[in-house]
Amino acid sequence: MVEIRKPIPVSEAVRLVMEHTPTLDTEIIPLEKAYGRMLGEPIIATHDVPPFNRSAYDGYAIRAEDSQGASKDSPVAFRMIGEIGAGHVGEKPLGEKEAYRIMTGAIMPPNADAVVMLEATKGTENGFTIQRSLEKDDNVSFKGEDAQNGEVLIEKGTVIHPGTVALLATFGYAEVTVSKRPVAGILATGTELLDVTDELEPGKIRNSNGPMIQAQLARMGISCRSYGMMEDNIDACTRIVEEALQETDFLITTGGVSVGDYDYLPAIYERLGAKVLFDKIMMRPGSVTTVAVLGDKLLFGLSGNPSACFTGFELYTRPAINGMMGAKKPYLPHIYATLGEDYPKANPYTRFIRGIWEMTEEGPVAVPAGFNKSNAVSSIARGNCLIVLPRGSKGYKKGMKVDILLLGMEQGAETWRL
Amino acid sequence: MVEIRKPIPVSEAVRLVMEHTPTLDTEIIPLEKAYGRMLGEPIIATHDVPPFNRSAYDGYAIRAEDSQGASKDSPVAFRMIGEIGAGHVGEKPLGEKEAYRIMTGAIMPPNADAVVMLEATKGTENGFTIQRSLEKDDNVSFKGEDAQNGEVLIEKGTVIHPGTVALLATFGYAEVTVSKRPVAGILATGTELLDVTDELEPGKIRNSNGPMIQAQLARMGISCRSYGMMEDNIDACTRIVEEALQETDFLITTGGVSVGDYDYLPAIYERLGAKVLFDKIMMRPGSVTTVAVLGDKLLFGLSGNPSACFTGFELYTRPAINGMMGAKKPYLPHIYATLGEDYPKANPYTRFIRGIWEMTEEGPVAVPAGFNKSNAVSSIARGNCLIVLPRGSKGYKKGMKVDILLLGMEQGAETWRL
Repeated sequence: MVEIRKPIPVSEAVRLVMEHTPTLDTEIIPLEKAYGRMLGEPIIATHDVPPFNRSAYDGYAIRAEDSQGASKDSPVAFRMIGEIGAGHVGEKPLGEKEAYRIMTGAIMPPNADAVVMLEATKGTENGFTIQRSLEKDDNVSFKGEDAQNGEVLIEKGTVIHPGTVALLATFGYAEVTVSKRPVAGILATGTELLDVTDELEPGKIRNSNGPMIQAQLARMGISCRSYGMMEDNIDACTRIVEEALQETDFLITTGGVSVGDYDYLPAIYERLGAKVLFDKIMMRPGSVTTVAVLGDKLLFGLSGNPSACFTGFELYTRPAINGMMGAKKPYLPHIYATLGEDYPKANPYTRFIRGIWEMTEEGPVAVPAGFNKSNAVSSIARGNCLIVLPRGSKGYKKGMKVDILLLGMEQGAETWRL
Repeated sequence: MVEIRKPIPVSEAVRLVMEHTPTLDTEIIPLEKAYGRMLGEPIIATHDVPPFNRSAYDGYAIRAEDSQGASKDSPVAFRMIGEIGAGHVGEKPLGEKEAYRIMTGAIMPPNADAVVMLEATKGTENGFTIQRSLEKDDNVSFKGEDAQNGEVLIEKGTVIHPGTVALLATFGYAEVTVSKRPVAGILATGTELLDVTDELEPGKIRNSNGPMIQAQLARMGISCRSYGMMEDNIDACTRIVEEALQETDFLITTGGVSVGDYDYLPAIYERLGAKVLFDKIMMRPGSVTTVAVLGDKLLFGLSGNPSACFTGFELYTRPAINGMMGAKKPYLPHIYATLGEDYPKANPYTRFIRGIWEMTEEGPVAVPAGFNKSNAVSSIARGNCLIVLPRGSKGYKKGMKVDILLLGMEQGAETWRL
């Protein structure tokens, strides 16, 4: 008896996963370890930036009024009364036609309201002359012009990238509150699987999905526990799934979700009392991708075919992991590209093709990364995007505008729009 | 006396850096650690993929000729003589109207040349019937159709991403030859600098460049040694630079490269006998960015201004690091975007503005990330790209097409075209 499953649209599957994604706690870590983590609190300015009026250039701090009338024919002379290096302070207030030598970033001395750039001066015995007048505030960076004390600069749920680290350092965040990272469990099923170190045997292939998912997780900074490769044995599998759910925040299995006689995952979900959110999606590859939930833990049943497994992870597991960490932008970013080759196959379901995009003079162009059956491992290795060909069409022509989802990018998207 | 420096174009500066970039050795690491590394050898198929003719679906393996003439009115009956699960082998050759039950990915049994999908069959007591004929090769994946033994699949100098890991696992690469990662030295100069844990003092700011560069390096998987923050003291600085060059593969300094009286880096380069490749670039921010070379080691003298420092790293240090690892695509990738705001400032030099790009129905739109003086730390934290406004223009209008360089992306570009 062949079980008939009801397929749902990709967007509905994404929505169901996100609706069942729990949010993890936060933790405090040192700033040096913060790159790539998700902000668990907003970054608030703890002081004005700049914290004081400062010189924007190397030059001389003066009173602008003293420069009035300066010209080529009648230069104005200033007397230097001291030097202010960055980090130093000029104590004595400026008197008429007096100046401090001042470095970029140094605090403006009392009474000074403009800076003459070094290049605009001509040295004299005790100072310099200028040939053009300055306005008040010329070449001065003002206290608070970049950020004001108490201002929320970056929201929580944002990935900490190098610029964020700079901001945290500026405001003295030696420690940062970030979202905890979930720990993943990985379990590969299939009697056909060999370990990467095994010699090939007739009818068997090496397990590439386990290492691949480990790398997909590593790309997100997520660590995992591997529960090895299970033969297609329902009792042993069930025990291992139970054990894995004790020790991890969510579980990824590969294989075992088709309607074949050896595909045990549906039975295991039933034994465990897990609620199946969906077991058929209007997508290729990976239409059998199944997601179930038990308590607050998600079980991702990805296809055993490498390309389908890869795609299932990127479309469903990745945003869920981001969601667990409270990400504001959990989804893969997309851009439009021109299809660089015909893709004549009919599309009863939305097709996600491993593709290569490149920038050209006419904009981004994407082509399928090679052989595109769902078991084509080499196309995954060559691809840097997923080309999206919506369902319902009769094939796509070279030159058509398509959506591509960008892989391997820090940047996320706030909504899933496909 | 103000020193007059001769500015060079950005493309020329990039070329000079890459010309002086040494290539590091390779090393062998376990596959589990390979994500994010640079392939130091090509990936060569060690066997055909698939390694044998296999079933593309769950169903029945048959001889296609036996199905000829099958129709709704005259179904053809097959007798099942065994089951072939994935990883198992069917030994007995098929006779007339015989079939094996076969799982996705399982090896085709002797004499079989087509697979009937399970959904297309109707069960009988000892087998099934079909109502449509099949052609030879239907639903069979062929030995070698995805990759052939000995084929070079991925070139060296390619970043190992999750798909690459899958390919390596498939071919039994339990260990992988990758390029060694260079170790960076970081030295911040400036009397105005406080540590991240220090309380603010008049005239001083916390060192944000050091932690930021550490994160820019971490984003590339590169570790560093920090040589702390030096006061503007030329003797002490020189000793530390010498020490750092002993212990690291290249050195990044921040600050000290302007023409101010306290900017010691030029003098240090001279003392060490380092060859200055350039000390003025036609770009803003960061026109004073200086790169020198001593022996086979690069010294990146980045500006002390956070935005200029950030940009200098991304434009020059990043591709050099990739170059040390033999990357085929060392440069930041770019796409075209529509400028979402006027940018009225004149552009005597090429301007790199920290920007935010977002996808819209009309394509990518980029806007400056906020306040855009070179010391604007908050704009770095908000930005996810660099908007490039070429020199020689009088300002840019909303709606114009501009280049943007994408930050935080695995993907690189093979050439520098700006």
